[in-house]
Formats: sequence, structure tokens, C-alpha cells
Amino acid sequence: MQIAIVIFDRFTALDAVGPYETLGRLPDAETVFVAEHAGPVRTDTGNLAITADKALAEVPHPDIVVVSGGPGQTPQMENGVLLDWLRTADATSTWTTSVCTGSLLLAAAGLLRGRRATSHWLALDHLERFGAEPTEERVVTDGKYVTAAGVSSGIDMGLTLLGRIAGDEHAQTVQLAVEYDPRPPYDAGSPQKAPTHLVEQLRSQSRFLLS
Amino acid sequence: MQIAIVIFDRFTALDAVGPYETLGRLPDAETVFVAEHAGPVRTDTGNLAITADKALAEVPHPDIVVVSGGPGQTPQMENGVLLDWLRTADATSTWTTSVCTGSLLLAAAGLLRGRRATSHWLALDHLERFGAEPTEERVVTDGKYVTAAGVSSGIDMGLTLLGRIAGDEHAQTVQLAVEYDPRPPYDAGSPQKAPTHLVEQLRSQSRFLLS
Repeated sequence: MQIAIVIFDRFTALDAVGPYETLGRLPDAETVFVAEHAGPVRTDTGNLAITADKALAEVPHPDIVVVSGGPGQTPQMENGVLLDWLRTADATSTWTTSVCTGSLLLAAAGLLRGRRATSHWLALDHLERFGAEPTEERVVTDGKYVTAAGVSSGIDMGLTLLGRIAGDEHAQTVQLAVEYDPRPPYDAGSPQKAPTHLVEQLRSQSRFLLS
Repeated sequence: MQIAIVIFDRFTALDAVGPYETLGRLPDAETVFVAEHAGPVRTDTGNLAITADKALAEVPHPDIVVVSGGPGQTPQMENGVLLDWLRTADATSTWTTSVCTGSLLLAAAGLLRGRRATSHWLALDHLERFGAEPTEERVVTDGKYVTAAGVSSGIDMGLTLLGRIAGDEHAQTVQLAVEYDPRPPYDAGSPQKAPTHLVEQLRSQSRFLLS
């Protein structure tokens, strides 16, 4: 069983590391970080580089595809090498998944047509132009396609999929091992819960999100 | 304002990336990943490398120190270069913090004597031999020392400290931006909540945790 976590220039680190730290603890699975070219890949803040141990071309048929997201997705949504790889990998994958705006890349590759899917709350509407059905849930499963909401939701997605594949007890053991008993100091993690003026403030900046 | 996130061979990725993705969004702060030597550092699973952009010696006086954890902490608890750096950095830091078994490194450096502190639930008792007071909470603040429980708790720690430094609204905005509205598919994230036999199973393996 091979899990490929797809990263690219300006990806969001937690998008990738959440599923890595949970789903990646699938027994007898090999997790590999992949990018267009092997080597260090810088995140959106510029302050962190994660190594892609292999190039996309070296990992053509993973069992599970995990696509991370990031701000400024437009270049990746037009990256033919990446989109071609996604289509090829998806043709033989058991599960095709994404976190955050990673779903826009799956959608741009034509993989989410007619499917329910989610994304970062600021990017959710963009799914529609690729024929997907934007769905406001933290983790959305439609057939073999599992999409997660923004950034931190990859942890919930990873545990959900781990349970589906390896059983509830294995997923619970991993949850206990990573002590995932969240206690956010605020209750502002979704646009429904956060103070309205903070939601509007982020929304007013979001025209930059996809540029 | 400089935030130094300390990593080392076999650290746990989410320990470091949780605070990076939250606390690291402090306005006008520079976040830098540091290790004994600059360059790629492999995590506990072996499947991921994160780049330490600078060596410890290049970042002697960060304002905030964040120490990640990992299984098999004994070599680091006896790493004189790392412990000396922690003592020197702590002498001028505004905040000295840790995630998971990172608190054992702070304790081994002699920085938590007489202080309330937490750690991964499997390692909590070990704090006592360094004169710290093990405290079963997700995030423990004692003076300028902020310690967090296992792995995923670094997200809660990062947001807590961000609120203290930059104000509640900034922390809430970051929580909303990373969509931290957790929905774990199970309620097994702490030894109090997980099925007893799974807790015992992990505990029986934990003698390896510190070796």
C-alpha cells in the first residue's frame, strides 16, 4: 500500500502533515511526499521547506493520493504536468483525497464532476465551475473521493479514512497516540462560529486567495 | 520578533507544524526551523524530512523557543549541544515552550524545576525526575513556560500563545484561516476517553518510548 502526498511551491504545511501524521500510520503502508521535482519544497509562508522524496513521475500508481492545498492555487490549477499526473494516478487509485484547496486541483483535473466535495470555506464556491457540488462539511466522502475542508481538517480526514481502511480500533489508537483531544482556546474555527467582522475581513482578502 | 522551532533526528512532524501554522502567523514575526546542524531532518516515521534552515548556533537569542518532541528522546536528553543551547536561549527568551515530549528536553536542561508542566500522556511521569510538577492539562502555562500535551496539542498551544501575545481577535482570525473547527470521527484522543484496552496496549509499548 502506497500513500502519495502531493506538495508544490507555496503549499500549506499542515494540509499535508495532518494526513501524514494520521493516515500515514496505516499498517504496512509506505507514505511518500511527491512534487513535480524531487527536493525541498517551500510552503506558503516561506519559512518552512519539506522534502519531496520523489518526483511525481517516480510514483505513478499510488493506492492513496492526498493532495494538499495552499493560497494562490491558480498556477497549480493550470499545471499540466500535475493535472496529468492526478488523472493517471486517479485511474488506478483506491482513494483519491484532498485537504483545503487541494480539491480545486482535483476538480481542475476533471475528477470531481458531478461529485459532492468540500474545500477551504473561502474557496468552496470555486468547485462549482468544475462541475463539483460544493458541500459544507468538514470531511466529504463521495465514492472513492474524500475531500476535507481548510488546513487543519486533514487530521479529521486522515482519521476518518484510516478507520474505513484499517478499522475503528486502529484509528482510535492513532488518535490516542497523537493525543487528538482538541481544546481550541476560542470557538472561531468556521465562518458560522467566528465573529462576523473577522469573517468579513478574511473574505475581503480572499480575492487574493486564488491569484 | 523571532520564533525558533527546534527539531532533531526522529522528531514528530505535527509537534512542530502545529505551532508553526498558528503561532507562526504572529504579525511581524520571523519563524525559523533550527537543528543542531542546518539541513534536512528526518521525522520519527522516516517518511518525511523538514529542513532546518539554520543551525542552533546561528539563532542564539530567539524571542520564542518552541521545542518539538518525538519518541526515543533519550539521545536528545543527553545531547549537550542542544541542552546548552536551550539554557542560553531561555536566558533571554520571552517565552519558552514545548509540544509533546519536547518538555522532557526543557526539563533535562533544568528549565522546569518547580514548575507545572505537561507532556505526551505516556511521558508525563518522567517530568518528575527533573523536578517539574506533571500536570494533566492540554496546555500548561507557568510564568513564561508553556508546555503542551501530545503531538496535536501544539495547535491549541499555538493559538493560546498567539492570543496572549497578539490579542484574541488575531488568534481567532488565524483559527478561522486554518479552519480549526475540529470534528474527530472518534472520541479517543486521551487516555480518559479511549477504550481501556487500547490505552493499555499503547502503555505496554511505551517502555520503548524513551529508549
